[in-house]
Amino acid sequence: MDPEAFLDLANQVIKLKMYPYFDIAHSLLCALAVREDLGAGAQAFSRKHPLSCWLSTMLVIFAGGMVVNGLLGEPILAPLKNTPQLVIGTVTWYIVFYTPFDVGYKVAKFLPVKVVASAMKEIYRAKKVYDGVSHAAKLYPNAYVIMIIVGTLKGNGAGFTKLVERLIRGAWTPTAMETMQPSFYTKASLVASVIFVLDKKTDLISAPHALVYFGIVIFFVYFKLSSILLGIHDPFVPFENLFCALFLGGIWDSLAKLLGKGQPKEETKDAKKTN
Amino acid sequence: MDPEAFLDLANQVIKLKMYPYFDIAHSLLCALAVREDLGAGAQAFSRKHPLSCWLSTMLVIFAGGMVVNGLLGEPILAPLKNTPQLVIGTVTWYIVFYTPFDVGYKVAKFLPVKVVASAMKEIYRAKKVYDGVSHAAKLYPNAYVIMIIVGTLKGNGAGFTKLVERLIRGAWTPTAMETMQPSFYTKASLVASVIFVLDKKTDLISAPHALVYFGIVIFFVYFKLSSILLGIHDPFVPFENLFCALFLGGIWDSLAKLLGKGQPKEETKDAKKTN
Amino acid sequence: MDPEAFLDLANQVIKLKMYPYFDIAHSLLCALAVREDLGAGAQAFSRKHPLSCWLSTMLVIFAGGMVVNGLLGEPILAPLKNTPQLVIGTVTWYIVFYTPFDVGYKVAKFLPVKVVASAMKEIYRAKKVYDGVSHAAKLYPNAYVIMIIVGTLKGNGAGFTKLVERLIRGAWTPTAMETMQPSFYTKASLVASVIFVLDKKTDLISAPHALVYFGIVIFFVYFKLSSILLGIHDPFVPFENLFCALFLGGIWDSLAKLLGKGQPKEETKDAKKTN
Repeated sequence: MDPEAFLDLANQVIKLKMYPYFDIAHSLLCALAVREDLGAGAQAFSRKHPLSCWLSTMLVIFAGGMVVNGLLGEPILAPLKNTPQLVIGTVTWYIVFYTPFDVGYKVAKFLPVKVVASAMKEIYRAKKVYDGVSHAAKLYPNAYVIMIIVGTLKGNGAGFTKLVERLIRGAWTPTAMETMQPSFYTKASLVASVIFVLDKKTDLISAPHALVYFGIVIFFVYFKLSSILLGIHDPFVPFENLFCALFLGGIWDSLAKLLGKGQPKEETKDAKKTN
Repeated sequence: MDPEAFLDLANQVIKLKMYPYFDIAHSLLCALAVREDLGAGAQAFSRKHPLSCWLSTMLVIFAGGMVVNGLLGEPILAPLKNTPQLVIGTVTWYIVFYTPFDVGYKVAKFLPVKVVASAMKEIYRAKKVYDGVSHAAKLYPNAYVIMIIVGTLKGNGAGFTKLVERLIRGAWTPTAMETMQPSFYTKASLVASVIFVLDKKTDLISAPHALVYFGIVIFFVYFKLSSILLGIHDPFVPFENLFCALFLGGIWDSLAKLLGKGQPKEETKDAKKTN
Repeated sequence: MDPEAFLDLANQVIKLKMYPYFDIAHSLLCALAVREDLGAGAQAFSRKHPLSCWLSTMLVIFAGGMVVNGLLGEPILAPLKNTPQLVIGTVTWYIVFYTPFDVGYKVAKFLPVKVVASAMKEIYRAKKVYDGVSHAAKLYPNAYVIMIIVGTLKGNGAGFTKLVERLIRGAWTPTAMETMQPSFYTKASLVASVIFVLDKKTDLISAPHALVYFGIVIFFVYFKLSSILLGIHDPFVPFENLFCALFLGGIWDSLAKLLGKGQPKEETKDAKKTN
């Protein structure tokens, strides 16, 4: 591909308007996620507790913005002032849960629909991560860690609000904390945030900004599609294992065990890195 | 009744000063609610954990303001700067929990006292809902949903902080989420918020504002007294059932079941609307 | 000791710079507390869930600032913008959890190291309580209760975030609420806050400010060292019991029981004040 044309494409991706199609794709997948999280009793639940069902779906849709606002001292409810997005969210929720004969849900679950919506959602995610990093950089120009945290939360807010979302539905699952077993989306958003911070704040990345952004979009979409179509769920695992072995005790623990003066064997039995 | 005099009365209700009598009634019922929530062990608990008891009572008294401030990015502790109200709350708490021979509690539980306090609390509630809607309308003039949420939370904040309130007392009851089985107060506050928003933002309601406000006060007081004296707990249920049948799948589910291609029978067994 | 020299010393204590040595001592004890809270499985946990381990340690280190910011409507993440402190925290966390052969942990646990760090942390705590009271006094000049709450939370924030900290590590212990059994640190911070408020806002304390501050520092350090070296854990208990007997029902309950018309005996069996 001609580099000029490629850069041109990248510049177009960066200017893509999110409203309304990407908002629809995002809301649709959020509502589907809520329905799947409810399991077999989803339909019965949606009939018995419509308010709780609606609130938790809205929380998932607006999770990133709400969490970040909460952590940055801005109004948590502010994302809801975007009325068109709220209407899209409500209509999507209605379609997924309440259409006659469950037509809406079945259409949304249809693989091609899901693949297209997922790809769009990943483009949306990349934009949200970038917006999060930029917003935090405006507030705290030197606090890299805050930028990375905000970017990650904007990218996968729903992962971090899962506990509250389930609590709204009357379920409490403290062991499902995102921090315990970060999902691929969290890790990918984290990596993307780091890259955006490096791009914004240092000279380490010499590529034009549009290319960096486009690269991250491709990376997000590519792994999402691999995950849906090929079943590859977490390409970060080998890197993590290497990092843990080198820096977080792996090698030294083995050495200590060899020398017979480390921690007793029973304690390390379940220490194999699994996330 | 002469319409002139009626409007006059409405105008007086709208200007009622809340401090101190309505604050006292509100605090008294809040402290009673905490004591009742503690059940049989209330007195023992109040002796063993006075700090926790005081904090949770204060949370109930100031719940609406605190929750709304938290969601609107304003200081959660700000309601506590109202020193007279804090003093009233503390004195009431002391009277309900610690008077010799439990005199205070017994007096507060005495039916006529409770009826008067409840009626006053409902007038207070109407004012809080109205203040909440007005406050949100100032911040987000076009975000109707935020106005309704804020109005509802101001009206029945204690319902939504129940989990935190119990957590302060070391108890955790995730299934008691207000969103799962909204109480009558939540529904009434929601309806009142919607009416206030319509009155404020549209021309659909042509009655003078004072009359609308007075109507809601009467509605709140009337149903509170019905609930205490006649045991009618939720006049909204028939409307909800109708709405659910028409729009949230009720009729279509039955049709699908009839046609034998909807969800399997076992799943819908517990789907009867109960809240 | 010569009063002049004493006042001079007090003035020097008040001007002590916290960065970096006191920050190091504070971070070290926080990381140790996290490790101890994890119990026997701490090392295995730190290998399996490094992200969760790091986040919960950071939460403990910055607990006071974060909780207070959350309650005062300021950005919860703001304390993290202090990059040097964040680096100190991260390095300390690494040393406590991941040094080869657990050298770092063993050194930190070594009694003289722990005693010195604890003494420094108490000086740090006194400063944080004072800063909290001053900050709240600037925002709400007449709200004494808010000043006391903020001072207490700054002094022992980690106690109040313990539930969230454990939740980040996937554990949920609702009965461990600080409000149920306030620790000595909470009570000491509360008393110190009250004294600072009295010193700042009233004329009841005629001693120079530096002396008041120095007195509180000595009080904190003295009881911390008593606790480590002599095993005295809570010098407030006798005063609390007296207060409870006089004002929170103690005497009246006994009287009521004597007269045989108070609460039935079974209920009061576990009412003995224990915290």
